Amino acid sequence: MIDESYSVRQAEVLISMRMVDLILKKRRGGELSRDELEWMIGGYVRGEIPDYQFSAFLMAVCFVGCTARETADLTMIMATSGGTLDLSPIPGIKVDKHSTGGVADTTTLIVAPMVAALGLPVVKMSGRGLGHSGGTLDKLESIPGVDTAVSTEEFLDLASENGIAVVGQSADLVPADKLIYALRDVTGTVDSIPLIASSVMSKKIAAGCDAIVLDVKYGSGAFMQNEEDASELAEAMVQIGSNVGRETVAVITDMNQPLGRAIGNALEVEEAVDALSGRVPYDDPLMSVCFTLAKKMIQLGMPGTKDEEAESMLLEVLANGSAKGKLKTLVDSLGGNGEGVIKCTELPRARERVPIYAKSQGYIASMDCEALGRAALLLGAGRATKADVIDPAVGIMMCSRVGDMVYEGDVLAELHVNDGTNAETAKELVREAIIIGGEYPKMSPLIFGVVDINSIALREATDNEEAPEAAEIGESPQYAEADALARELGLMDA
Amino acid sequence: MIDESYSVRQAEVLISMRMVDLILKKRRGGELSRDELEWMIGGYVRGEIPDYQFSAFLMAVCFVGCTARETADLTMIMATSGGTLDLSPIPGIKVDKHSTGGVADTTTLIVAPMVAALGLPVVKMSGRGLGHSGGTLDKLESIPGVDTAVSTEEFLDLASENGIAVVGQSADLVPADKLIYALRDVTGTVDSIPLIASSVMSKKIAAGCDAIVLDVKYGSGAFMQNEEDASELAEAMVQIGSNVGRETVAVITDMNQPLGRAIGNALEVEEAVDALSGRVPYDDPLMSVCFTLAKKMIQLGMPGTKDEEAESMLLEVLANGSAKGKLKTLVDSLGGNGEGVIKCTELPRARERVPIYAKSQGYIASMDCEALGRAALLLGAGRATKADVIDPAVGIMMCSRVGDMVYEGDVLAELHVNDGTNAETAKELVREAIIIGGEYPKMSPLIFGVVDINSIALREATDNEEAPEAAEIGESPQYAEADALARELGLMDA
Repeated sequence: MIDESYSVRQAEVLISMRMVDLILKKRRGGELSRDELEWMIGGYVRGEIPDYQFSAFLMAVCFVGCTARETADLTMIMATSGGTLDLSPIPGIKVDKHSTGGVADTTTLIVAPMVAALGLPVVKMSGRGLGHSGGTLDKLESIPGVDTAVSTEEFLDLASENGIAVVGQSADLVPADKLIYALRDVTGTVDSIPLIASSVMSKKIAAGCDAIVLDVKYGSGAFMQNEEDASELAEAMVQIGSNVGRETVAVITDMNQPLGRAIGNALEVEEAVDALSGRVPYDDPLMSVCFTLAKKMIQLGMPGTKDEEAESMLLEVLANGSAKGKLKTLVDSLGGNGEGVIKCTELPRARERVPIYAKSQGYIASMDCEALGRAALLLGAGRATKADVIDPAVGIMMCSRVGDMVYEGDVLAELHVNDGTNAETAKELVREAIIIGGEYPKMSPLIFGVVDINSIALREATDNEEAPEAAEIGESPQYAEADALARELGLMDA
Repeated sequence: MIDESYSVRQAEVLISMRMVDLILKKRRGGELSRDELEWMIGGYVRGEIPDYQFSAFLMAVCFVGCTARETADLTMIMATSGGTLDLSPIPGIKVDKHSTGGVADTTTLIVAPMVAALGLPVVKMSGRGLGHSGGTLDKLESIPGVDTAVSTEEFLDLASENGIAVVGQSADLVPADKLIYALRDVTGTVDSIPLIASSVMSKKIAAGCDAIVLDVKYGSGAFMQNEEDASELAEAMVQIGSNVGRETVAVITDMNQPLGRAIGNALEVEEAVDALSGRVPYDDPLMSVCFTLAKKMIQLGMPGTKDEEAESMLLEVLANGSAKGKLKTLVDSLGGNGEGVIKCTELPRARERVPIYAKSQGYIASMDCEALGRAALLLGAGRATKADVIDPAVGIMMCSRVGDMVYEGDVLAELHVNDGTNAETAKELVREAIIIGGEYPKMSPLIFGVVDINSIALREATDNEEAPEAAEIGESPQYAEADALARELGLMDA
């Protein structure tokens, strides 16, 4: 007679041994098959493979990387690890939008209403901020009464009724990604291109969109520190989208300084309202990025639309107030007072404003954008851990940008403070984050480039023609072309 | 009022965040301070740092490595993580011996009695086999009545009384190493030079010896697959010993085929008895390695002893039976029948012998030594997991060595079988592990070299003189010298 507990133990031993083999295979540079990845991720989600084995695997991936095939498989395995949304009852091409995370990155709250106002359905599940970067859900929930925890049925109803729905991710979507992301967060394995790419794309694919526009940030406030890494991440994600039949376009944008002026949840909602009300100039960096992203969404959702056409359409929905109207609708649909929000009478405000003065004269040479995000977090605008509670009113308003000439005593930024506990530390962080120098600084391009499946093919062809080392991605012709276009349209610093 | 559970959670969050910082520091190639390593290992041993963070750290070490300083610190932190032994009551220089693990590696059971017979105290804590490699404790315990679980007091008493004591490691020694080793075993992080070196040396240092002789194996049956890796591991361990004041000498020996003829616990005890009884020729590979190791132990324990003197001393204790007598004493002291063992009447024997025949004529070209170890494991001679029970009688007797000319039908090896369940699989493994070819094969040197603190200094000087790439460790003059000496003494295949 076989002892049952013995068999259970033997089964555990076999799983453990097979997992060790797969960890070693990856560690030694091997490529895992789809079956192997499925077995591993399935086992992890079911709790048969312990955290300590999976984290060792993740660290090996950080060093060895994944092939395009592995990354695509990983994505689809995670995307289908729980429920997936079927958006087909909603007519039209559903284009999703995602940012890899930044500081003062209010684009969703501007782009979504603009695009929805054009009749393109915006059906979006957003995330929360973690660490120094903000999240759309937290911004929406800074509005009194708003609750983004909406059932899937309600979500689809809202989308059909209003043409716009921005809510929290359903609990049953991508459980594998949720588990793996939580583990990466505590094991120093967050910044790995295949892991980031598969995590982002699995969520987007499970959420049922037909096409995806990605805003891939680079710089001191982003996961990707430079243009090269951001381009690589962008290519990985566009590649996945293409492999699984969801057309994907990535815009690579600068995060070496806050994108907008506002860092903090209600402050960012107010900036979005300002933008949708025409109170932010169109050549402002925040608006430039919003226009670029919105135009890509339009071109994916209404194929054949020319750049200039998309531009005029956007200008019109801003001018006639319909974009602002869509934000009102969105806020109303989530339980808030939309009218109050677009009139800026309904947003919480902090008790105190603390200005940060320039201590010397000169040009703003650079900013440590992550430090600015962390300073806002210290004031209560973000979470150091998932369990932290956010103060919706606090944050930082930036009064300067890289390249600005400032004089001693000029206000560089203003802290919006409720609880003074960490205010001094935050103040110091902000002061140290803004570097003043004697010379006009070298500026990083606001929009570094656009990656789609054609630009990847073009780059690969160029790589093959030239010596392999010569292929500086930022100098490839397709990027120069995209840059020229962006400049022409006033979307990029000249 | 501060909520206590909140403070506890906050403390956990702070530990988790600091550990993530240290993981990232290592991942990015940084060097950890002694304080950081102490904090990390202390926290892990106390259960404050979870397995999944520590395994991610270990995997990062596998890729990034450790500096000599980090490795020495790691070793001493682990060595002092529990109790340490004070061997000073036992007179004389206590020289420990350790093998990095191999197949048919019966050296301890031959070397320890020879050296003890010369009056040098052998006071040794041994380990168990795991995976394809055997362990001295399992071999000793294949003798009916023998129990190696001996209290520290008894251990020291035995050592004083008999001049020889080989027992299991005390439970309270190196708890950090025990925990970390168990985690490495299941996370694919075993084969990392700093991790192996610090694990081995922490155990030896905690066990209180004054000096250490290491047998570092290379080849298909060893952790280190080639001479270069074995040399690097040997240097790391000699370096640690030197840093912490325990003179250490490493002998790098071949494990591309089983060292002795016997693979399996009682079979290996019998081979040791044969060797100590003069029934194994002195130029046999097993005896050659035993002589080299024993001579190094003599030279560390009786400084100034010349090589030829040590050689004659060893030949004498073999000829006059006193070495065999020490094995008898050891077995008696652990509860076995020593007389019966040295007469080979007291050892368990398997029910059946299954010969493996050569299927063709030719030279034995190579052996997959790990596969031979695994075949013995399948028959019950080893453990796939720590909970497995060993059959002391089973194993494999090798009847051929690399370079032998064999004819079709010759017996290459003989399986000693009790439980037939896996016999067919084991047979197939052995057959496939022994490769017969048409040409006389290139032989790997039995003793590749000897590493001590002087040879490291010499190698470093040579590296600095020559171009960095030119420093092939095997071609350094000190190795050539050691080889020449070994050949002269008949200890090495010409």
